[in-house]
Amino acid sequence: MPLHPDRLLPIEPEARAIARELYAGVASLPILSPHGHTEPRWYAENEAFSDPVSLFVRPDHYIFRMLYSQGISLEDLGVPDKRGVVHNTDNRAIWRLFAKNWHLFRGTPSRVWLEHSLETLFGITERLSEKSADAAYDTIDAALKTPEFRPRALYERFNIEAISTTDSALDSLGYHDQIKASGWKGRVLPAYRPDAVVDPDRGRDGFAERVAQLCALAGTPVSWEGYLEAHRIRRAYFIARGATSTDHGHPTAATADLARDDAAALFNRLIAGPITSADAELFRAQMLTEMARMSLDDGLVMQLHPGSFRSHSPSLFEAYGPDKGADIPTATDYVHALTPLLDAVGTDPRLTLILFTLDETTYSRELAPLAGVYPALRLGPPWWFFDSFEGMRRFRESVIETAGFYNTVGFNDDTRAYLSIPARHDMARRVDCGHLARLVADHRLDLDEAHELATDLAYGLAKKAYRL
Amino acid sequence: MPLHPDRLLPIEPEARAIARELYAGVASLPILSPHGHTEPRWYAENEAFSDPVSLFVRPDHYIFRMLYSQGISLEDLGVPDKRGVVHNTDNRAIWRLFAKNWHLFRGTPSRVWLEHSLETLFGITERLSEKSADAAYDTIDAALKTPEFRPRALYERFNIEAISTTDSALDSLGYHDQIKASGWKGRVLPAYRPDAVVDPDRGRDGFAERVAQLCALAGTPVSWEGYLEAHRIRRAYFIARGATSTDHGHPTAATADLARDDAAALFNRLIAGPITSADAELFRAQMLTEMARMSLDDGLVMQLHPGSFRSHSPSLFEAYGPDKGADIPTATDYVHALTPLLDAVGTDPRLTLILFTLDETTYSRELAPLAGVYPALRLGPPWWFFDSFEGMRRFRESVIETAGFYNTVGFNDDTRAYLSIPARHDMARRVDCGHLARLVADHRLDLDEAHELATDLAYGLAKKAYRL
Amino acid sequence: MPLHPDRLLPIEPEARAIARELYAGVASLPILSPHGHTEPRWYAENEAFSDPVSLFVRPDHYIFRMLYSQGISLEDLGVPDKRGVVHNTDNRAIWRLFAKNWHLFRGTPSRVWLEHSLETLFGITERLSEKSADAAYDTIDAALKTPEFRPRALYERFNIEAISTTDSALDSLGYHDQIKASGWKGRVLPAYRPDAVVDPDRGRDGFAERVAQLCALAGTPVSWEGYLEAHRIRRAYFIARGATSTDHGHPTAATADLARDDAAALFNRLIAGPITSADAELFRAQMLTEMARMSLDDGLVMQLHPGSFRSHSPSLFEAYGPDKGADIPTATDYVHALTPLLDAVGTDPRLTLILFTLDETTYSRELAPLAGVYPALRLGPPWWFFDSFEGMRRFRESVIETAGFYNTVGFNDDTRAYLSIPARHDMARRVDCGHLARLVADHRLDLDEAHELATDLAYGLAKKAYRL
Repeated sequence: MPLHPDRLLPIEPEARAIARELYAGVASLPILSPHGHTEPRWYAENEAFSDPVSLFVRPDHYIFRMLYSQGISLEDLGVPDKRGVVHNTDNRAIWRLFAKNWHLFRGTPSRVWLEHSLETLFGITERLSEKSADAAYDTIDAALKTPEFRPRALYERFNIEAISTTDSALDSLGYHDQIKASGWKGRVLPAYRPDAVVDPDRGRDGFAERVAQLCALAGTPVSWEGYLEAHRIRRAYFIARGATSTDHGHPTAATADLARDDAAALFNRLIAGPITSADAELFRAQMLTEMARMSLDDGLVMQLHPGSFRSHSPSLFEAYGPDKGADIPTATDYVHALTPLLDAVGTDPRLTLILFTLDETTYSRELAPLAGVYPALRLGPPWWFFDSFEGMRRFRESVIETAGFYNTVGFNDDTRAYLSIPARHDMARRVDCGHLARLVADHRLDLDEAHELATDLAYGLAKKAYRL
Repeated sequence: MPLHPDRLLPIEPEARAIARELYAGVASLPILSPHGHTEPRWYAENEAFSDPVSLFVRPDHYIFRMLYSQGISLEDLGVPDKRGVVHNTDNRAIWRLFAKNWHLFRGTPSRVWLEHSLETLFGITERLSEKSADAAYDTIDAALKTPEFRPRALYERFNIEAISTTDSALDSLGYHDQIKASGWKGRVLPAYRPDAVVDPDRGRDGFAERVAQLCALAGTPVSWEGYLEAHRIRRAYFIARGATSTDHGHPTAATADLARDDAAALFNRLIAGPITSADAELFRAQMLTEMARMSLDDGLVMQLHPGSFRSHSPSLFEAYGPDKGADIPTATDYVHALTPLLDAVGTDPRLTLILFTLDETTYSRELAPLAGVYPALRLGPPWWFFDSFEGMRRFRESVIETAGFYNTVGFNDDTRAYLSIPARHDMARRVDCGHLARLVADHRLDLDEAHELATDLAYGLAKKAYRL
Repeated sequence: MPLHPDRLLPIEPEARAIARELYAGVASLPILSPHGHTEPRWYAENEAFSDPVSLFVRPDHYIFRMLYSQGISLEDLGVPDKRGVVHNTDNRAIWRLFAKNWHLFRGTPSRVWLEHSLETLFGITERLSEKSADAAYDTIDAALKTPEFRPRALYERFNIEAISTTDSALDSLGYHDQIKASGWKGRVLPAYRPDAVVDPDRGRDGFAERVAQLCALAGTPVSWEGYLEAHRIRRAYFIARGATSTDHGHPTAATADLARDDAAALFNRLIAGPITSADAELFRAQMLTEMARMSLDDGLVMQLHPGSFRSHSPSLFEAYGPDKGADIPTATDYVHALTPLLDAVGTDPRLTLILFTLDETTYSRELAPLAGVYPALRLGPPWWFFDSFEGMRRFRESVIETAGFYNTVGFNDDTRAYLSIPARHDMARRVDCGHLARLVADHRLDLDEAHELATDLAYGLAKKAYRL
């Protein structure tokens, strides 16, 4: 089943024709990937990817969670356990198991992305199945051994203009330095992710130590002021290596704006321990406002994506560790939670705070109304499970009428599945062109405006919002 | 207005043509009705239904609640009061009142179902109205007196392969025995509904007595262990009579997994009384986990549908009792509530726990992400008010991208309106074929896959999930 | 870009043709505007509107909030500050700034409304831009000086049959008297909005004084009974001037039904002060039930629209005061909150209580199920941000299947933007006809029924619900 040129476009012929025209104008624009999880090591070392399973199955929890939900064990799928041990190393057998269960992915974005990758990168057009598994495996495996499939060659082939990684505040960014030193022209930018040193709940026992490590890296004392200064210094370190953004994954959207002495006392309590849940939440909340203030000074764009119940299954976590597809969205309040931060800095147009959500009910009720009034706010694209055909449609239909297009920031792929990046951007461009086409077809928008918007959604808004 | 062959299919001609083809492949598949509320007595005694009003108006709260909402009294509609007294016994007058207000049902699923029943069962194609009321009444009334309209004949005419009733844990299942003894080949299966002996709030005064009754039936002592054993014995009793599932209607989705002694102490407190709301909630929560554990042993599929505020109007309840259309959905949490149960048994693929909801916001935020990872979880079809054209569309569009089709369980009619069963399954098949047709039309799915899925959604998934 | 005759109608040709036919039948029906915020002074004094900016930009927070969200200061936009001072009085420059940023409104209802007004009232068909700004300004400015653009002439030109204003319980309704005395035949009806004397939180310091003022106006003592009697007297005063409705904007939907002595004690505590948040909430809750009881006696239709977090930005409020586009929707419970009121009077068909919401999740979960059973309840149209193309579509698709069309009340424009009224009603009629056309196209509804419903939605339901 070769990819159809009109896939994902509106069904109605007139709207499809308009969408096709709009898509033609943006299909080959460069890719901006301002938020994602590819590894800087790939670009630094530029080594070949090892095999089809390590590339498509083992690291992609959208793939293995679906197989697991239908009774296939993670062990059989070769997913590394908590200690990193892989119990099934027969990659070909794992690939067959995956291919045999390909029908489980019908109607999912994983299916769309993978088919796009298989055809455009490997020339595979036969549908995955037990029967076709081996041939596909061999084709991919052979290709991965060629120079054209090294990370840097793929970067160029994908027409990426800039890609952000996500890096701990404690990271040396050595790979980023190595990339720069190599003379290669690809733009691989770090992003400042301070969760480990901002969220005491990411391992309460080690929090004081992590903070001490941060302060040591920055050469500041372990005090509230020293800690804040350490963040400033580390942010500058990231900026010097190309960073334009920070990234914050919190359980809730709570923010706070404590008086200096209250904040310092809170910091001291957390360092002294034991840590309480209330203090941990308050500290995260306070630090969002502190980070926003630092952004006013150093210009880093701030990203916040709250609302995930991490590692929902304790037994799965116990056996396999985090990031195994069991992070589940929760109902999330933004209106009350963001008040302290927004009151402090939300009306300052120098700040850009990009909000993501895992609770679609907030699109029309909270996020669009907030982004439609606060100069500092922008809305990130549909996130995680909602980075999908229907998810994107719901986002556009729920958000734009209140917030407008220009309070959104285009598309992020947010992925560690490197080979899926073109597929993901292609899907977003198609869905956005379909949305615009419908607005043209029922005369809410003129065609020339839709062309301009299609380019903005695919490229311009991300470039501007992320200051790329 | 005769039923149009393309009713409920997509409007766009290409998608309609695909949907028509898909529907043709499933239209006459047998009906599996694994969750419903028809009465076993009907099939056991096989007596004629008495009259049109007793069949279509009086027992169907979707019908009389709409009339009531527009100012027509339940008294005038002949709805029995709390003591079972019917204040208006003029069935023909009630039918006229109903027919005169037929316009109130425009745009509702009740309208779709009733028109389907009237035409396919009684040959009535004239729209209901004050003018047409008498003729329709006479036609239906005459038909009901014929052998073709006896419950067993209808079962066969409807092409039902198996139908579940819903039965109290205290029920003798005498009618089920009578059906079996009769030699009739229809499969009328009981389902184990233990709410009365699991939920102390279903009449606090009588709870200890109901528990005592359960233990007496099973021949076990009234103790925590004896009570659990009584459930095991009663479940076996149901299984021996064909049951494949249990059914749980709780105010919330709360689950618990208490230590043995804590659970026993809770049980003892509830039996001793007085019962507190907190204890009642905790006991329901604990019992869901106990029931799930029993399912691991005896293989009964578990169904949970939380979130109804029962009998919202106290004055209506006071006058007319429960089940009068005043059960109102409430915001429902699943992510936190289900954690204890899922941690205990959720990763065991031997368990099947089917979740229903009355809060559509949980589709994409909680239910699809949970069902997309836990091997034990499956999602039931749109429930109650959402068993409708738009409700089914929203369900498919919100759930499938994250959970896939194979973590859903096809269609349940969930009805006591026996004559509407073919209409309800027909609507579900049409809407599902329409959904699949759109996926084919925009190239997210191939046609052969859509055919396979159409069959699975209409028949295969229910058969597998409910172990029929 | 002249307005397209098929704008906002379905894209699919068959559905569009049906929608076009339905729309033709309702396009020129008179306008009923039973809830809005135009000023009675306009109709009383019938003076010319001063200039384009005062008409289209300065008073419309949908317009200036979008510009503000993109970094344009309210000062530059000439929005009056808290003390009423306008810092930029160069209307032409403001208009240019607005026109230059016209692209920000792509995809918003503001764009649809404004283009409709510009073309149908001023003959302007060129798209707003920096280049076209001056010509548009001059055209509008010149027109406003003509007699055809006086408020009364516009009322007639708009084919308004009746329009409600919203008036404080303390208002003398002098302008309404002046309109009547003038002999002009326009129906400008007051609506009783008692928030200032019902909600202690609308300025706690002045609450006792406001209550005293109410009682003084009515000639009653400042006691619980006197206060209630004052409301009755003021309501009668409003009724004598044409009022058919009351209007209640509360932070939550909480209702209460206290015993007489508890209510009196609560009243006395509030008058004595200091006022607590709990008492304020309870008093608002109690007063909704009291107002509903009064409606049983005097026939005023009751409107409730809870759930707004008013003036979300304290700094914006500090500088510019209320109503600056920073009122943000919040998650709202109706099921539990309305129980006391509904238990007291909800089953009485003499009462009409129209519910609005800012939380779309309640459409299918709470509002439609409640309105589909309680005789007193009706659902108001999509409100605020949801008075939009997609908002109306979601409302119809979420509400009608459960509540039916006849438990909704047609359209309200809810606007102070007088010139946008025809545009708003036109949009609602188009979207509703599109919805009906889809029901006809997939055979859920017959064409003659759709015609009847189109008229009801555009005119009949509002006339009946608001007793106009």
